Amino acid sequence: MPAHLPELRKDPIVGRWVIISTERARRPVEVPREPARPATGPCPFCPGAEDKTAPAVYSIDAGGSWSVRVIPNKYPALKIEGQLDRQGEGLYDKMNGIGAHEVIIETASHQPALADLDEEQIARVLVAYRERIVDLRRDSRFRYVMVFKNQGAAAGATLEHTHSQLIALPVVPINVAEEMRGARHYYEYKERCLFCDIAKQELADGRRLVYQNDAFVVFAPFAPRQPFETWIVPKTHAASYEDHVRDYPALANALRTALRKIQTALDSPPYNFMLHTAPFSDRDAAHYHWHIEIMPTLTTVAGFEWGSGFYINPTPPEEAAAFLRDLET
Amino acid sequence: MPAHLPELRKDPIVGRWVIISTERARRPVEVPREPARPATGPCPFCPGAEDKTAPAVYSIDAGGSWSVRVIPNKYPALKIEGQLDRQGEGLYDKMNGIGAHEVIIETASHQPALADLDEEQIARVLVAYRERIVDLRRDSRFRYVMVFKNQGAAAGATLEHTHSQLIALPVVPINVAEEMRGARHYYEYKERCLFCDIAKQELADGRRLVYQNDAFVVFAPFAPRQPFETWIVPKTHAASYEDHVRDYPALANALRTALRKIQTALDSPPYNFMLHTAPFSDRDAAHYHWHIEIMPTLTTVAGFEWGSGFYINPTPPEEAAAFLRDLET
Repeated sequence: MPAHLPELRKDPIVGRWVIISTERARRPVEVPREPARPATGPCPFCPGAEDKTAPAVYSIDAGGSWSVRVIPNKYPALKIEGQLDRQGEGLYDKMNGIGAHEVIIETASHQPALADLDEEQIARVLVAYRERIVDLRRDSRFRYVMVFKNQGAAAGATLEHTHSQLIALPVVPINVAEEMRGARHYYEYKERCLFCDIAKQELADGRRLVYQNDAFVVFAPFAPRQPFETWIVPKTHAASYEDHVRDYPALANALRTALRKIQTALDSPPYNFMLHTAPFSDRDAAHYHWHIEIMPTLTTVAGFEWGSGFYINPTPPEEAAAFLRDLET
Repeated sequence: MPAHLPELRKDPIVGRWVIISTERARRPVEVPREPARPATGPCPFCPGAEDKTAPAVYSIDAGGSWSVRVIPNKYPALKIEGQLDRQGEGLYDKMNGIGAHEVIIETASHQPALADLDEEQIARVLVAYRERIVDLRRDSRFRYVMVFKNQGAAAGATLEHTHSQLIALPVVPINVAEEMRGARHYYEYKERCLFCDIAKQELADGRRLVYQNDAFVVFAPFAPRQPFETWIVPKTHAASYEDHVRDYPALANALRTALRKIQTALDSPPYNFMLHTAPFSDRDAAHYHWHIEIMPTLTTVAGFEWGSGFYINPTPPEEAAAFLRDLET
């Protein structure tokens, strides 16, 4: 296939997929050397610039104009057109790079931070996530949709206007498969959902608790990869985000509270958050439980982490949680 | 246990361990906000400063003074003293942070790059890796030694004088366990070592080949996580580095050639390299094969990568390899 089409390739040892996507690089050495910097010039996500992006695939209107707008990514990692074509190459496996890569513009106003929007607007963003997952799930080529946010240049954002992204994939990502496997193993032994047990233990213990409302618990995980890593877990069992969120205002309240505490504690750090939800094939699983993981980007991934998968974290989660818990939002 | 002692904690979902190590951070918010910057002042790794570091645990002398020197890390992620103490905490698992964290000073002269040393000196460094692994293996508390190098501030280095590091661990790291599992799965089906097959295919195919000598093949892996990722694999089967390297000059030649090509191609980029070798318990495994993975640090690990374990790589390995292959060293 021509070099300019993206390709999915599987590492034959651990089964990890990579996307070889040459959209942005022309020559081999033309790769970004620095963390992405915010672009200059007029913002392409602001109202009035709609003709500079592809047509919206989804939008929520409020008061006569759009309030949340979802568009295809201008530089997609994967391409939406074509049929899946799995091929071998000697002992290797590859397929053409079919997928969807979309941008969720979280507000019409040129705000740089999701945490600064009100809960009503954040709830609209959360509804947009659901609607896009439900729509993409109808496409039989896809097995998973990863929703994520890069906030700040050091966390990978290239545009300032607050936005999140999603990538629909024709395979279940290795991290999701490993979570499913671990959670299934626990369920087979205990006949209880691991995440339900974690949420209960964190609520009872309290040392890593950051916040809670009626529907969600916000806490520092027991084994965080980064300082101030924070998870949001629904209190009642639910495998998939798109089928099981009932209470968007409560989720918006939990997410906004967590982000505002992190923003205050660490002076608006770069961060990523990732929606962890069940693959389409497992969306009613008794053993899996959707949740959101927020990771401030404060330490460098270096040789030890690349080689071992271990992370060295200088901040005990009990101390991070105590600090966040006491902050006003 | 007191907060200042490091602790190993296991993520209950995927089984990933983290090291909670408060050695360098006093308050929760006192975490590094930027990639590490080289320290200023007199170099603690230069001859004459030996009294500023802990006594050497190993050294190689040449011409009346030391040529390679291995010392305990001044800010160790793990502590060498104490007995292993595994404990539960509700559904979680933890143990005290026992381990060794050492620095391999690669030359007595204040050089910033391993690639600029001659092959004879690089061979001494490679011998030092072996001698330290063999020594640490005698300690029954340890199951694995991860040898790695951080080159440049963006790749995690804090001192300019060229050095690598090792961390001895009381558990097998998750990435190593997953490699062992994948390689065993292949071996059970084929009765052949996966890495032997990879080396053969890369030599026969040639499109991803960067360099070879009698004993080693240097190539861009089929599914690289980063642009210009480069592996060095022995041509004959060998599970563990410390027991099976016979030809240090040939390995020094392969490593120096790979590093010099990367240095020239990308203008001395930050990079990490990691020695992948079998756990102590599997050091004669028929299914595993030690190797070195070199990863230039050119792209940002962002939300999609954190959530999915997928990597988006803008540079096809065939193009990176062709570019490196043709460079003079």
